[in-house]
Amino acid sequence: MSAHTQARFAADIYGQRLERAVESMRGAHLDALLITPGPDLEYLIGSKAQSFERLTCLVITSDGATPSVVIPKLELASLAASATEELGLKVLDWVDGVDPYQLVRSTLHAGSRIAVADAMPALHLIPLAESTTGLPASATPVLRASRMIKDEAEVAALRRAGAAIDRVHARMGEFLRPGRTEAEVAADITAAIVEEGHTEAAFVIVGSGPHGADPHHEVSERTIEKGDVVVIDIGGPVEPGYYSDSTRTYVLGKPSKQVADQVAMLEAAQAAAVAAVRPGVTAESIDAAARTPLVEAGLGDAFVHRTGHGIGLSVHEEPYIVAGNDLVLAPGMAFSIEPGIYFRGKWGARIEDIVVVTADGVESMNQRPHGLTEL
Amino acid sequence: MSAHTQARFAADIYGQRLERAVESMRGAHLDALLITPGPDLEYLIGSKAQSFERLTCLVITSDGATPSVVIPKLELASLAASATEELGLKVLDWVDGVDPYQLVRSTLHAGSRIAVADAMPALHLIPLAESTTGLPASATPVLRASRMIKDEAEVAALRRAGAAIDRVHARMGEFLRPGRTEAEVAADITAAIVEEGHTEAAFVIVGSGPHGADPHHEVSERTIEKGDVVVIDIGGPVEPGYYSDSTRTYVLGKPSKQVADQVAMLEAAQAAAVAAVRPGVTAESIDAAARTPLVEAGLGDAFVHRTGHGIGLSVHEEPYIVAGNDLVLAPGMAFSIEPGIYFRGKWGARIEDIVVVTADGVESMNQRPHGLTEL
Repeated sequence: MSAHTQARFAADIYGQRLERAVESMRGAHLDALLITPGPDLEYLIGSKAQSFERLTCLVITSDGATPSVVIPKLELASLAASATEELGLKVLDWVDGVDPYQLVRSTLHAGSRIAVADAMPALHLIPLAESTTGLPASATPVLRASRMIKDEAEVAALRRAGAAIDRVHARMGEFLRPGRTEAEVAADITAAIVEEGHTEAAFVIVGSGPHGADPHHEVSERTIEKGDVVVIDIGGPVEPGYYSDSTRTYVLGKPSKQVADQVAMLEAAQAAAVAAVRPGVTAESIDAAARTPLVEAGLGDAFVHRTGHGIGLSVHEEPYIVAGNDLVLAPGMAFSIEPGIYFRGKWGARIEDIVVVTADGVESMNQRPHGLTEL
Repeated sequence: MSAHTQARFAADIYGQRLERAVESMRGAHLDALLITPGPDLEYLIGSKAQSFERLTCLVITSDGATPSVVIPKLELASLAASATEELGLKVLDWVDGVDPYQLVRSTLHAGSRIAVADAMPALHLIPLAESTTGLPASATPVLRASRMIKDEAEVAALRRAGAAIDRVHARMGEFLRPGRTEAEVAADITAAIVEEGHTEAAFVIVGSGPHGADPHHEVSERTIEKGDVVVIDIGGPVEPGYYSDSTRTYVLGKPSKQVADQVAMLEAAQAAAVAAVRPGVTAESIDAAARTPLVEAGLGDAFVHRTGHGIGLSVHEEPYIVAGNDLVLAPGMAFSIEPGIYFRGKWGARIEDIVVVTADGVESMNQRPHGLTEL
């Protein structure tokens, strides 16, 4: 496996993350973190385990004990690719008929104050809470600082993801043509996302004509027509699991002057928000940097969502670029900047880059032209 | 959209399910069910909403009030395809900046005893619990009887799913050949699963040679060789969301006598378990019906997992066909029967059908030959 397609980083990276988690847990006066499959587990030990109804759970305690992985015996193989063995973690496997929640409890001191991964489903959270000390806290505050600040290897992965999705946008003329349905275009884009180096296509939005006015439209059987404005919002993970996410807006033919003018305003707003990113400013100031020019242009009501979301091992994670979030940006934070304008029943446009905060400014992971692209 | 590709059933089906949920909630002395996206939400209102970090939540109360759907304003469109409007449910939309957990609380009486969907992530469960009355119960006991007993339309969907996956197995000779990697074979199978009528390929296990000995192996870059025994376990959803799941074991060329004999014993064990299915017997008796002949043949240690799992809008749901489950089978229950034998480092075999309990016996959703298939 080449360095570019590694399924995880070197084990010492995960060792450092586990140490940071223990330190942060102590600062938060917590005794244990219970981490079920999902991005937190992937972050901490490089495991892409996906079990649902049988409990898999990493247990990290603040007492300095070796962390344990509770896992169904028949899913042991899923640990082989993780850093579990190299890190010398304890493996507690269980077979059907054993109570895995008691197995977790056996690793904890009585009265432990517990936090759990945000992804833990109620299916496991409720019996774990009943086996331990009641309603747990969320592990996100404990892992937040560590997960939000991407290290060099993580930024390199985000760069590869950005370049891969840029290559898909560069090929959009192959896929997006009048007479084809959104679903047909989406199927081609899905294949191209994989061809260009992603492990899968995580989402493909083809919002043509009036569908572009719904920010969460995915695809439909609508036939794309000449003159349509089309929002294309696409992404997926590249190894070892970091996501791309990029939106561009296309027009099939020549846009009307009004459409051209309004998308130009959106482009300026997106660029202003990117330019505002640097260490020391707040997340909400970046939202304002995108929103203010649109409000001033009379388009404030058309911009119905937040400006962006953090990205990494999850498509959506902290920091959220939204009014009310006074988090101060720091080098290594990675997030989308994706203002949009939506005119119900008519058309919509959105422009989205992933950016990373640098020591003194910002680096964009996406390099495709930002304006309305005529196909 | 034809009847065969409908995205949901008629609204009255969901109305009946909601009524059953209210009745069952009253019997369980619960006051409210909080259902976030996942199979329970799909079951109750036909919504395939998939939001994660922004709360979408159906609230059903035992007081007879109209159920409410709390949903982010920008995901309102995802409700359009559900039965929400036809059923006259209340829609409480919210925008970024609003506390959606308080919105849920506003629909509840003080001190309500609450149960939540098993799929609800800690991300929402913890703040909902903090906004209401602490650690909730699981909604699964309330929905179990209703979800476990499939009605005619659901059984018809499972039949379509079974026929679709049978067509993929029938084409296995196109895909599975010596000299190809498991990943190459899996890619072709993935495409065929969609071509044969599934909306996506949910899982594709190609366990060749020694990989067949790991029940949860997925795929690898291993090149398949002449003489390999190969376990193929595949499935996906057909509209309106019901899953197929079928395993067959193939051999590339002629098997050794030992392999042929042991797979024949497995085939007999699987057939015996299917033949044992009828109303009035327990789930664990079906597990025993598969296990006993294998134990008697000296293969008990090679059969390392339970015999089966329920299936419907989830790939794995109740009833579980496992020792210790004394649930009495009733008409309409649908589950897998999938004994396997695994020889670490050598080879493995598994045979899996989905079956539905009928008024006086059993109907299998899968019709492909069960024995070792030579390719």
